[in-house]
Amino acid sequence: MSPKIHAHRVRRMVEFAETDMAGIAHFSNFYRWMEAAEHALFRAAGLSVHRTSAELDSGFARVDARCSFRSPLRYQEWFELEVLVAKMGRSSMRYAFVFRRCDGEHGRAAEPPIALGSITAVHIPKKPGSTEMRSSPIPEDIREHLEEAPPEKLAQLEVENS
Amino acid sequence: MSPKIHAHRVRRMVEFAETDMAGIAHFSNFYRWMEAAEHALFRAAGLSVHRTSAELDSGFARVDARCSFRSPLRYQEWFELEVLVAKMGRSSMRYAFVFRRCDGEHGRAAEPPIALGSITAVHIPKKPGSTEMRSSPIPEDIREHLEEAPPEKLAQLEVENS
Amino acid sequence: MSPKIHAHRVRRMVEFAETDMAGIAHFSNFYRWMEAAEHALFRAAGLSVHRTSAELDSGFARVDARCSFRSPLRYQEWFELEVLVAKMGRSSMRYAFVFRRCDGEHGRAAEPPIALGSITAVHIPKKPGSTEMRSSPIPEDIREHLEEAPPEKLAQLEVENS
Amino acid sequence: MSPKIHAHRVRRMVEFAETDMAGIAHFSNFYRWMEAAEHALFRAAGLSVHRTSAELDSGFARVDARCSFRSPLRYQEWFELEVLVAKMGRSSMRYAFVFRRCDGEHGRAAEPPIALGSITAVHIPKKPGSTEMRSSPIPEDIREHLEEAPPEKLAQLEVENS
Repeated sequence: MSPKIHAHRVRRMVEFAETDMAGIAHFSNFYRWMEAAEHALFRAAGLSVHRTSAELDSGFARVDARCSFRSPLRYQEWFELEVLVAKMGRSSMRYAFVFRRCDGEHGRAAEPPIALGSITAVHIPKKPGSTEMRSSPIPEDIREHLEEAPPEKLAQLEVENS
Repeated sequence: MSPKIHAHRVRRMVEFAETDMAGIAHFSNFYRWMEAAEHALFRAAGLSVHRTSAELDSGFARVDARCSFRSPLRYQEWFELEVLVAKMGRSSMRYAFVFRRCDGEHGRAAEPPIALGSITAVHIPKKPGSTEMRSSPIPEDIREHLEEAPPEKLAQLEVENS
Repeated sequence: MSPKIHAHRVRRMVEFAETDMAGIAHFSNFYRWMEAAEHALFRAAGLSVHRTSAELDSGFARVDARCSFRSPLRYQEWFELEVLVAKMGRSSMRYAFVFRRCDGEHGRAAEPPIALGSITAVHIPKKPGSTEMRSSPIPEDIREHLEEAPPEKLAQLEVENS
Repeated sequence: MSPKIHAHRVRRMVEFAETDMAGIAHFSNFYRWMEAAEHALFRAAGLSVHRTSAELDSGFARVDARCSFRSPLRYQEWFELEVLVAKMGRSSMRYAFVFRRCDGEHGRAAEPPIALGSITAVHIPKKPGSTEMRSSPIPEDIREHLEEAPPEKLAQLEVENS
């Protein structure tokens, strides 16, 4: 059986459409990017991927998302986005996110981070058309492939994020 | 029975998140705005509104969308967007769109238009999860509430749009 | 002299382009909507509005934005978004946001809130092309038109938001 | 001197935030993606890249953008987007775009195309704060690195696009 993973890194470049008239990446994009990194973590863990609304594992509803910003990103700048499993509860997951500016697609990522974020998502049973958000236990296949990041790795982020 | 309509006007103000680093509304927003005006036309015609994916009348797939731009829109500028039914076929609809800068939410709309667009959409039977896009006849309730705009009203736009 | 204000309410309807394949408004839109409400608060306070990049009072950089979600919004649902001045520091502002589902554009807003958020922004001197974010005191004209909301009005939100 | 190029290909995967409640990539994203491919073409040609508003070569204003859609893209599907220089005028550029579904990031791209598009952009002298869009000749460094695609390569697209 493949080992569990607790983190994953992706790289992106800021696109023109993501900038605003202040000349920087609009802050709302950071939330889209965090979610995309969360999904990349799932793929990296070999978790199944659904393509259609009908099959949609609509299972994880966002209940909280936050981000603190220290330095702006500009057009065509590359950044690395690391996602870590911060907490795995019975029915909820919390992810921590670290944004680091980096030197192109393959160059070194620079410290300190330029932004820190977190998303808490709750697993919900799929009921199309429902307006309720009742929680349900996280499926076993997810528990078999993901695990919480080591406390020492999270500690630094927690402090900074508080 | 209520009379048929062939056009509708909405007003919007450019939001900060819709601008780009060139200091103007990013052109991709014009396509979102045209679609929103099309949906407002449907509501104005008293056509039913569905709220959930399950009920979704996914009926109209975009097959073509174009826009020509003459003058940019800036942050907090108001514009009026008029949608007209340009053509009602057996299974497809073509809409024409006219963007006019205007003097606040209630002031006069200025000529000439700052942008002209069109969207062609095809009615498709709802089949969740399908990747096919087979056309089906436009439902009767739509034909009872919408009609083509008068040729003379469209003529001017057609010329400009060619 | 006109009285200071500490809150403002706007209403919006969820547009099709704001939904995702789960059939609800994508959570990243809540951050765009909060910013738009913040700007509407400024306009309601009679604060000056700049239209071009050159004039841009790029003064308020977001340093933190968070939102907690309790109930999803769907296509064509109306909601009311209230923004309150939660804290006015020497160089930073914190806003609290309350989302309430409402009965159309003019109908009653329903309790409890469906989402609560906050944005902290720091005033920065305008230096085009700069990558630094140094803070500067909030301009006097802003202090003359905006004030902190009463503690009792904020208390309830603070508790819920913690 | 490096040879001129007339086309470039990029690959992308549809992200969750790009889907809508119909379960497919919202059509407005195709326009963002076309612009991103145009910018990737510039980078591939070794053309200089500006990072800040102050330096912004705001030179290319979109005057027309269109796209025809044949088959929808779904969440996590990969596609290849080819951009070709369709016409290089004195002050304007027209690009043709071809979207092809592909088998992952590195697999084969499938024919026929799932969407065809075009963007016409006009070079404008940079005047921050200006609302005018006056055209100016395309800079020499661009002419030295980009050239029109061969007529036979464009012919097929032109026919399909008409």
